[in-house]
Amino acid sequence: MNILVDAMGGDKGPKVVVKGSILALKELNVDITLVGDESIIRKELSENNYTGDRISIIHAEEVINNEDEAAMAIRRKKNSSMIIALNLLKDEKYQGFISTGNTGALITGGTLITKRIKGIERAAIASPFPTENGMAFLLDAGANADCKPDYLKQFGLMGSIYYEKLFEVSSPKVGLANIGVEKEKGNLLVKEAYELLENSNINFIGNVEARDIPRGKADVIVCDGFVGNIILKLTEGLAFTIFDILKDEFMKSFSRKIGALLLKSSFKAFKSKMDYREYGGAPLLGISKPVIKAHGSSDEIAVKNAIKQTKNFAEKDIIKIIEDNISISE
Amino acid sequence: MNILVDAMGGDKGPKVVVKGSILALKELNVDITLVGDESIIRKELSENNYTGDRISIIHAEEVINNEDEAAMAIRRKKNSSMIIALNLLKDEKYQGFISTGNTGALITGGTLITKRIKGIERAAIASPFPTENGMAFLLDAGANADCKPDYLKQFGLMGSIYYEKLFEVSSPKVGLANIGVEKEKGNLLVKEAYELLENSNINFIGNVEARDIPRGKADVIVCDGFVGNIILKLTEGLAFTIFDILKDEFMKSFSRKIGALLLKSSFKAFKSKMDYREYGGAPLLGISKPVIKAHGSSDEIAVKNAIKQTKNFAEKDIIKIIEDNISISE
Repeated sequence: MNILVDAMGGDKGPKVVVKGSILALKELNVDITLVGDESIIRKELSENNYTGDRISIIHAEEVINNEDEAAMAIRRKKNSSMIIALNLLKDEKYQGFISTGNTGALITGGTLITKRIKGIERAAIASPFPTENGMAFLLDAGANADCKPDYLKQFGLMGSIYYEKLFEVSSPKVGLANIGVEKEKGNLLVKEAYELLENSNINFIGNVEARDIPRGKADVIVCDGFVGNIILKLTEGLAFTIFDILKDEFMKSFSRKIGALLLKSSFKAFKSKMDYREYGGAPLLGISKPVIKAHGSSDEIAVKNAIKQTKNFAEKDIIKIIEDNISISE
Repeated sequence: MNILVDAMGGDKGPKVVVKGSILALKELNVDITLVGDESIIRKELSENNYTGDRISIIHAEEVINNEDEAAMAIRRKKNSSMIIALNLLKDEKYQGFISTGNTGALITGGTLITKRIKGIERAAIASPFPTENGMAFLLDAGANADCKPDYLKQFGLMGSIYYEKLFEVSSPKVGLANIGVEKEKGNLLVKEAYELLENSNINFIGNVEARDIPRGKADVIVCDGFVGNIILKLTEGLAFTIFDILKDEFMKSFSRKIGALLLKSSFKAFKSKMDYREYGGAPLLGISKPVIKAHGSSDEIAVKNAIKQTKNFAEKDIIKIIEDNISISE
């Protein structure tokens, strides 16, 4: 197994990606191909005293930044680490690709270069979403702002297969994010998607109201990319805002400061429960090879976990199963 | 000034509505007309030892429940407290109406019976949304699951006028809920709405990402009713989930329990900051008379505050100002 890793991109640059790759080698039986600026990568490898032969380097002159507009970057930066890796990914030699870089470029590039799975109309970002009782997957988390009902049906199918295989949970619960639980609720898009999901062969549990998403009512939450991105970003913003307000309150008296000190471990436990780093990253479902988008602010642990996840994604033959199910369901 | 109050509906029934009305009379110079079951209302008035003459009763035989489908309820329950009140509201004698009942029926009934402001295409629910630095208004919060760009422009205009007059803040910041700050981000709906809002005479600050809504980046947040309802319900669900998880953590050791005790007042302060009851309710903007929807779980304080808000809504001549601005902007 040989996993392509985009050494560039991400808020913390090649340093954490190289470190994360070395950590992954200690844990997993894989080869890793780092794509990016060769001299920087070599420097990081030697700083980490890596002398093994399971890491290869493929040089890339350019980097796609987070500020780059996706379609433009794909056209113009042919020599960027991401585009080179997406081209290499078409080769049987490589079983998957992970990047901490520009999400838009990764999904557009994955679609245009590595191509979609036959029959899949749109690739989606399946974002891990921490809930009260574990981890759910939300898709689409932002790749497709405008969706057709059939896309949502395919998101449900892909999400269900990914969740089932990756977590070894049979028939995961798939819910449609909606503004009421009744079948007739929602906008035109979700009303039609409901019909399609209901008639598919997945474990569709119907509509899930937004208030029930953090409760873990569904394992896979289906929505268009606009709604999905709103859900993700609002969750992030609210958690930060709540803790900011509480922190201010905690500083208002001596006894409160003592209280906060006594609860420090509780807050820490809460944060680790909500920590995306433990999980790794978001699979781009619908691309014909395993692609994982790791968070831009990933540290080496998150990179290591994302590499592990890419390996699992490839080993469990998820793409083949999606392919077979799509051809049956169409 | 005479305010119509729906005595029925709401999770806690006529008891809290009558109590809230009596509280309102102590604070405000208004007359109140309670619409609902006369014998129940009389009983509640006498139990509260109310003997004044500023409360009138108009009898209604029926009640629209939360389970009733809106359009059906409007057609079938002509003698319900809500429908009778919406009909009375057309009379100059009454300056506004508040209900804790079925939101869908209220907006449909308001539109069909009391009618929209001339030029307004859709009425919207403007929900108060507590933020780090105060209170924002989010509209539409769920009345219109499918919107056209022009509706969103009108929501921005109405929200801006309401916020400006009610809070006496000049040129409140109006933002468009979106999945990125750049103008070209989002789905087709918000891209077109952006153009319209940009060319209107309100203080449009552009796109607001969901993570910045709780931070109070905008005073008025414009979105379609599907997205608005997702935002509201997710906020509610997340706050509850976070506190549930923290509570579990706090119970795990003796020192944590002590810590939680020392922080009790902090959590209380936080909760009161987030408390909708302090504020009252959600105005239905676009109806030709002031209508306020108070939360179904309102207690008497919330009802009192919602009556106060209805009075303000009427006194500030907000509907006339919306009317004038719509005719200019079209």
